[in-house]
This record gives sequence, structure tokens and C-alpha cells, in this order.
Amino acid sequence: MKTLVLVFHPNMSESRVNKRLMLEAQKHEADGITVRDEYHCYPDGKIDVNAEQKLLEENSRIVLQFPFYWYSSPSLLKKWEDEVLLHGWAYGTGGTKLHGKQMLLAVSTGAPADDYRFSGTFGYTMDELLSPFKATSIMVGMKFLKPFILNGVMQHLPDSSLEAKSAEYVKYISQA
Amino acid sequence: MKTLVLVFHPNMSESRVNKRLMLEAQKHEADGITVRDEYHCYPDGKIDVNAEQKLLEENSRIVLQFPFYWYSSPSLLKKWEDEVLLHGWAYGTGGTKLHGKQMLLAVSTGAPADDYRFSGTFGYTMDELLSPFKATSIMVGMKFLKPFILNGVMQHLPDSSLEAKSAEYVKYISQA
Repeated sequence: MKTLVLVFHPNMSESRVNKRLMLEAQKHEADGITVRDEYHCYPDGKIDVNAEQKLLEENSRIVLQFPFYWYSSPSLLKKWEDEVLLHGWAYGTGGTKLHGKQMLLAVSTGAPADDYRFSGTFGYTMDELLSPFKATSIMVGMKFLKPFILNGVMQHLPDSSLEAKSAEYVKYISQA
Repeated sequence: MKTLVLVFHPNMSESRVNKRLMLEAQKHEADGITVRDEYHCYPDGKIDVNAEQKLLEENSRIVLQFPFYWYSSPSLLKKWEDEVLLHGWAYGTGGTKLHGKQMLLAVSTGAPADDYRFSGTFGYTMDELLSPFKATSIMVGMKFLKPFILNGVMQHLPDSSLEAKSAEYVKYISQA
């Protein structure tokens, strides 16, 4: 399965978790995983729509990796959705280019998992907060896989755990 | 109540609904409503964080008006959240500037209301899809008011209905 990992972190040089996950995925590029640091590709936010569409067409599993910012993605991923997933390409008449492909979110959150419950700090589960992405996958005919969630990275993630999580991450996104 | 209406539409010149709602709100600027077309203010996406924070500090009710793009806001609103709602200002130690203020979403959707049910096309309610905004309001100490939702604008909104909805909109965002 050809897998594309699009990483959206606006400040990768200061990232610990997303940088580590990205580097681990990059070690497996020979295994059919293509990794892109999207903020690095587009420092001014001007997205090359044709290049992005071509990459999506060439891959079957699309991993969208990002830190949770205000209970959603950093803004460049939203811009990517708005500009790349076009009518006549991703949806609407003739818009079938993503049909049958898989969408897999990989999300790190600063707050611990317990906060993301109905009775938790925010009053919502991760499933609810990520619902706009699942609705998007439905609209473009993609299969929405169970997200890879790494909660609590601000508080409880020693280096050894991060190493283990990185290995788990690549195994997770590589499974059949 | 001093009210700030921040409008986020990436293509206002071709907008029908959001332009009409915005114009109606602008007619009431003498009544304490301040209206800003944010994409017009920031055509290159570079947000003046100090100016935005000052506007938020000066107003008690913050209306975030936008068309629903991929079950969320256009990307500039997400960028605004990421850049304006800063630690030490909006949350965290000393981050109390928005405490007690109100957040009111005003959202237009192309699809009809029936699509936004558990059993509907997208499998989610508007409440679920808008949950990231509600969670954000909780994190910054704002009161989340019931959103103003205008569903089905791609299909069933004759001019006369839009006129009525525009009047309803201003009444809604002006109520005590």
C-alpha cells in the first residue's frame, strides 16, 4: 500500500513529538511511505494544488499528521483542504479522484486523554472534535481509518516513551 | 453590549449570503456593532495580532461569521485562532482577556439542514461539527451562545428569504 504522510506543524524546528514521528516515518520511505513537511514546502502558505493532487492520486493511504491546535488542525491543513479538495476533482460531477483511498489522522494533543471525554475538561471526545475530518472523508469517498492519537504530550512523555510511540506510529500507519 | 462581527469569507466578491449578512450588520454600526471583513484586511494572510487583540478587548460579544468549508471555517479563521488567542493573553497564566465575553458563531452551509443529523448524509449534527469552537470558547473563558445557522443556501434561498434572514441575523446578534 503506497502511503503518503503529510505533516502539518507550523514550527517544526521547535517540535519534539511531531518531528520525532516524522523522522521515524522518513526512515521507512523505501517501504512505500512518502513523507512531506507541508509548512516547509509552503512557508508563505501558497499551496501548489497540482503537486498536492498528483501526490494524492499516486498514493492509497493518506496520513494527515498534526498537533492539535484549538481542537483542530493548524491552519495550513485547513487551507490545504479548501484549495486541494476541489469540486470536479474530489467531489461533485467527475470528482472521484479520492474514491476508495484511506484517510488516517495522526494527532498529538498537549492535554491528557481524560480531558477528552463528555465529562472531561472540554466536554467533547476526540471523535466529536475530529468529526469535521470524518465528514470530509465521507464527502470525498475516502475510508476514514481509526486515528492515531497521542494524548498528553505536554505532560507525561519521557524520551523512552516517545521512542516507543514512534515505532508504534510507523507500525500503525503501515498495517494492511 | 458592544459587538464585534468578524467575517471570514475568502471570496467576498462572489459571495451572496455572507456579503448580504455582512452588509446588514454594517447598517447597524451606530448601534454598537463593529464589522470587519477579515480576508479584506489580510489579503496575504498576515494577521495583525495586536490589532485583533485590541478589538477583542474592546468588545463583549464576538460574532464569528463564515461559510461552512469542509465542515469547519475557512482557513483564515483557524489562523486567527492559532495566532491571536495566545498563551498569557487568552489562556494560561495571566490569560484572562476574554473571560466573560461571548462567542457567537454565524454559519452558512450549502447543504440543507437534514444532512446534518446523526442519520443524515454526513452522520454528524452541526453541534458536533462545531464542537472545536465550543471547546475553544471554554478554554478561553468565553460563553458560547447558540449559533446562528443558515442551512441550505446552495439550494433554497430566494432573494426574499435572504432579505428576511438578514434582518433576522442582525436581530439575533443584537439581542440582550
